[in-house]
Amino acid sequence: MLIVMHKDATSGEVEAVKAKVLALGLTPHAIPGAQRVAIGVTGNKDGLEPGQFWCLAGVSDVIRVSQPYKLVSREVKPEDTVVHVGGVAIGGGAFCVMAGPCSVEDRDQVMRTAVHVRAHGAQLLRGGAYKPRTSPYEFQGLKLEGLKLLAEAREKTGMPIITEVKDTDTLAQVAEYADALQIGARNMQNFSLLEAVGETKKPVMLKRGPSATVREWLMAAEYIVARGNYQVILCERGIRTFETLTRNTLDLGILPLLREMTHLPIVVDPSHGTGRAVAVAPMARAAAATRVDGLMVEVHPDPRSALSDGPQALTFPMFEAMMKELRPIVAMGGQRLGEAR
Amino acid sequence: MLIVMHKDATSGEVEAVKAKVLALGLTPHAIPGAQRVAIGVTGNKDGLEPGQFWCLAGVSDVIRVSQPYKLVSREVKPEDTVVHVGGVAIGGGAFCVMAGPCSVEDRDQVMRTAVHVRAHGAQLLRGGAYKPRTSPYEFQGLKLEGLKLLAEAREKTGMPIITEVKDTDTLAQVAEYADALQIGARNMQNFSLLEAVGETKKPVMLKRGPSATVREWLMAAEYIVARGNYQVILCERGIRTFETLTRNTLDLGILPLLREMTHLPIVVDPSHGTGRAVAVAPMARAAAATRVDGLMVEVHPDPRSALSDGPQALTFPMFEAMMKELRPIVAMGGQRLGEAR
Amino acid sequence: MLIVMHKDATSGEVEAVKAKVLALGLTPHAIPGAQRVAIGVTGNKDGLEPGQFWCLAGVSDVIRVSQPYKLVSREVKPEDTVVHVGGVAIGGGAFCVMAGPCSVEDRDQVMRTAVHVRAHGAQLLRGGAYKPRTSPYEFQGLKLEGLKLLAEAREKTGMPIITEVKDTDTLAQVAEYADALQIGARNMQNFSLLEAVGETKKPVMLKRGPSATVREWLMAAEYIVARGNYQVILCERGIRTFETLTRNTLDLGILPLLREMTHLPIVVDPSHGTGRAVAVAPMARAAAATRVDGLMVEVHPDPRSALSDGPQALTFPMFEAMMKELRPIVAMGGQRLGEAR
Amino acid sequence: MLIVMHKDATSGEVEAVKAKVLALGLTPHAIPGAQRVAIGVTGNKDGLEPGQFWCLAGVSDVIRVSQPYKLVSREVKPEDTVVHVGGVAIGGGAFCVMAGPCSVEDRDQVMRTAVHVRAHGAQLLRGGAYKPRTSPYEFQGLKLEGLKLLAEAREKTGMPIITEVKDTDTLAQVAEYADALQIGARNMQNFSLLEAVGETKKPVMLKRGPSATVREWLMAAEYIVARGNYQVILCERGIRTFETLTRNTLDLGILPLLREMTHLPIVVDPSHGTGRAVAVAPMARAAAATRVDGLMVEVHPDPRSALSDGPQALTFPMFEAMMKELRPIVAMGGQRLGEAR
Repeated sequence: MLIVMHKDATSGEVEAVKAKVLALGLTPHAIPGAQRVAIGVTGNKDGLEPGQFWCLAGVSDVIRVSQPYKLVSREVKPEDTVVHVGGVAIGGGAFCVMAGPCSVEDRDQVMRTAVHVRAHGAQLLRGGAYKPRTSPYEFQGLKLEGLKLLAEAREKTGMPIITEVKDTDTLAQVAEYADALQIGARNMQNFSLLEAVGETKKPVMLKRGPSATVREWLMAAEYIVARGNYQVILCERGIRTFETLTRNTLDLGILPLLREMTHLPIVVDPSHGTGRAVAVAPMARAAAATRVDGLMVEVHPDPRSALSDGPQALTFPMFEAMMKELRPIVAMGGQRLGEAR
Repeated sequence: MLIVMHKDATSGEVEAVKAKVLALGLTPHAIPGAQRVAIGVTGNKDGLEPGQFWCLAGVSDVIRVSQPYKLVSREVKPEDTVVHVGGVAIGGGAFCVMAGPCSVEDRDQVMRTAVHVRAHGAQLLRGGAYKPRTSPYEFQGLKLEGLKLLAEAREKTGMPIITEVKDTDTLAQVAEYADALQIGARNMQNFSLLEAVGETKKPVMLKRGPSATVREWLMAAEYIVARGNYQVILCERGIRTFETLTRNTLDLGILPLLREMTHLPIVVDPSHGTGRAVAVAPMARAAAATRVDGLMVEVHPDPRSALSDGPQALTFPMFEAMMKELRPIVAMGGQRLGEAR
Repeated sequence: MLIVMHKDATSGEVEAVKAKVLALGLTPHAIPGAQRVAIGVTGNKDGLEPGQFWCLAGVSDVIRVSQPYKLVSREVKPEDTVVHVGGVAIGGGAFCVMAGPCSVEDRDQVMRTAVHVRAHGAQLLRGGAYKPRTSPYEFQGLKLEGLKLLAEAREKTGMPIITEVKDTDTLAQVAEYADALQIGARNMQNFSLLEAVGETKKPVMLKRGPSATVREWLMAAEYIVARGNYQVILCERGIRTFETLTRNTLDLGILPLLREMTHLPIVVDPSHGTGRAVAVAPMARAAAATRVDGLMVEVHPDPRSALSDGPQALTFPMFEAMMKELRPIVAMGGQRLGEAR
Repeated sequence: MLIVMHKDATSGEVEAVKAKVLALGLTPHAIPGAQRVAIGVTGNKDGLEPGQFWCLAGVSDVIRVSQPYKLVSREVKPEDTVVHVGGVAIGGGAFCVMAGPCSVEDRDQVMRTAVHVRAHGAQLLRGGAYKPRTSPYEFQGLKLEGLKLLAEAREKTGMPIITEVKDTDTLAQVAEYADALQIGARNMQNFSLLEAVGETKKPVMLKRGPSATVREWLMAAEYIVARGNYQVILCERGIRTFETLTRNTLDLGILPLLREMTHLPIVVDPSHGTGRAVAVAPMARAAAATRVDGLMVEVHPDPRSALSDGPQALTFPMFEAMMKELRPIVAMGGQRLGEAR
């Protein structure tokens, strides 16, 4: 941490800051400046609060130097983490496509979708059983019935399933059926839920919150890992900006930097990231071209009748076309896409 | 809802949209246009999904006309709601100041703060016992011990207490001690928690999420009211923008419009809204000048030693000065501030 | 400037950074850290480019410590600047209301408005003659004819006039008629225009750009002052955020901090800041309550027929009511509002 | 345009709105609603002002249905526009890489860079001679001397040149040397400059402003085209958001939708879009994978010594590697990348 003093801070004020640093068991290093003094602080381990210094007299600014996340950082663990969901690896050279309907609506819908996406190379089946919705009057998912239909689809196709867990009350039930748990964007800083999934030891996909900085996202992942669950996948799904043409602004530009910051696998959700079906395949190709570890996309037999998020769902032919286009891009990065069958 | 067709949509496409509207039990109204056709939809009651139409052939845009929130809207209930917390009224002409430390740290801190803010006109005591923090390594609050200290302070000063509830697991415990529950900004769309506090019938203060539109905020309030709890207070506490000089951007400009949209009482939190103590009193005055129903502010006997959010806490003399300055502004709006004693 | 090295930077890399600092004629100060080395840089005067260091091997981060603006900063000039427009002072205890129509439309409109706002305490007349518009098909202002009508209104009412200058081509003409020049938000970083108005020595009001940080805004003001024109007024008029309920998000929270950063007078434009007439008076009161040096507001005899920005214009009675409400708030801050007459 | 009335608007208010519509020579179409009345307006041609209706009594909302841009829209001109710069085509199947230094610094720098980028397939040489900078104390470019060096590099390599024009004063000079003009992001709404380049008939690349919506960007392009210059290229270069890890947030998600909205060619600038060299090649690949018409990237013989934007400049080997990786992705989209030679 670096504490920058005001240009006209008195030497008494500088000494008071140094005394406070020492009182915390840390070491102050005064840096004489032409215009002002700065004080480097060393010895802190766990994300020292800048606030403790900001309100001292004569302090102009307090700047973090070390990052407050530890276990998720590549400085602590340089090699890539590979997360295993059912028999499917995510990270470490595999390129995993997770596909399926936004919401599980009925047996026919989920079965047909599972069979189709499997046939074209998807490796994980996604589908919402518990759906957090902006309005209390919107369809909230089939709940337990939805989980059972997903399990049936796994039975039939052999694909492991990933589904959202929206609260601690239903966690045990969801964990019983799901191979991997998804934390939705609006729950990214639901710390009680993060801690609870940290205890489960199930693979977890953590979506970035719509207004979360990369640093906050990594801190949220740190909550899960700090409880002993290292099986965490990060999912970029767009941030909220002033632009309303797309539902969110898919932030691909951070991905090469995120890769340097963390060892966790990274996937992209172009369905929520754009909210418009016509943009999904182009953004899926774009994400693959940046060399992420996979994609999550929404597919529906008939998007026009979808109970949620129809405008962003791919039809079956669109999904098939997207997978064909992805194959050479993924290969180019030395990665492997699931086989079509 | 209004469905706008493409300039070159065929009459067959127009008919297909009208058929879909009819199939949903609604009524289509075609509007002939010079350049294109639009189709008004009437008969929908509960926030029809635009998505159901967006993916039909020939559709260019789908525009919501009716608002999806109902119970919280002033169209449904024109008169102001007054929320009662202990014996204190919020809304309806009273201007309520809720003050206290960010976190409850120890008996001395909370007692001294409670006595001081009471003496200068605060009517509710705030203080965090369960603290959601960005980092798992930061101070998470005194938990039950903190609730007990708040209750002791209520005993001593007669002030009702408001404190944050961060999850459903601790809700019963928090509700046992608190006079009003606070839903933090990061939990604004934690729908399970919203439903749970909706069941309690305790007064609830719902903070706006850092990236929530006003419409989403009202929908979150609708979740609580839809469960039968009409005792909801809205709290503006700043949104996330590109500007980093302040911790958040306090969005006062929406308040006069929000007042027209909803009957619920509205308060402002200038402490989180700016994150900088020097800006708290000016923004408190500004908020009062727009005629909100109250304020929530953080006060600490010694902000330099605060375990959380020290840089935004007012000292005792700063709080006293702020209350003096607020008094004439509040009176100007025909509102009543709590008496100093 | 502070250069933070990677945890595993080699000592050779650290030495290379120090050599580069020395080569620029500056002094490096290595700060030994528990986890990593940081290098303080002193001796730089004019906003050293962080980029020169960011790309050196082993460098993890480069952090500005000194601010790059000089002449506009309060560190350089502690006392408030008072800008004089005609005989009217802005800053230094006066609270100046600038009012008038968005666009000058015809003689009757501007005269009636000038007389009305003067009668209720406005001290400067605003009105657009050259109008930058988002669409090439929208009304672009009366141009020279508009300037002449403004000058006539000054003749009649004795109020100095402020009007926007949109390019260097028309600057001489606008400067001939106007007492103060306004730089619009979209021109905040039109550096050629900033330099040109810097040469004129006319008072200039510089609006904040819709996506400008406070630092960038001060740098833009520095462009004007660096050319020898110290008569600069800063005008906060809202920033662009995800919220669409208001036209912009009026950022009052920065004002107390801006006051500490610069000696220049600060005014607020609640008309553009909200875009909705119903919110203008509440935000005007809010701005006054934070103790700015004045306001700019749009007034129109008949907003329903306005050629531009009608939805945000105050009617005559609304303006009169606003001025009455402002008077005690301004007095409270020890400031003086223009007399009604 | 659609005018939505309040739920409790009187029939007199509805009639007044209809009368106003008729008075403007347009046709009102009342749409009876279950909850409220809406009035469709037809007959308007040139971007009717919503504001004219918003302030009428009983009006709740005014919604644009038609887009206000015309000449740049694909509805008006369905086939792709191909812009020709020197002998190089942009759009229509060609994938054009424009590369070169951020600023022209000296003969050696620009020559070496031109030769290198040409050798690896770039088709246009970029380089800044007039540089708009945030601070008045930063390097502002070599100006005329820079233009002459660019012309020399064109002579030597045969590559047409594109360079920024920052104001109308220097436009004639820049147009004399450049094959294509670039309008920088901060000048996107400098309407006087847009009109002036519209008169030149030179090809123009219009960068998106950091806080511009797609609609505003297209309106800015409309300014140029409305003056008779159809040779306009759109360049996405990132928007300003809350995320500070990258310099801007590159908004690739809008591109597939922008393609449907306009016939103008679209290119992407991953250098400004991310501000970090390590992210440039991945984002260049991503942009190509979405099937844009080209890229603009910054290349420097020695980024560590660059006078501007060093942290985002590619080294020669990085550029060469990027071009190799782009080739198969571009081919996949049926596009042609310039040959290496």
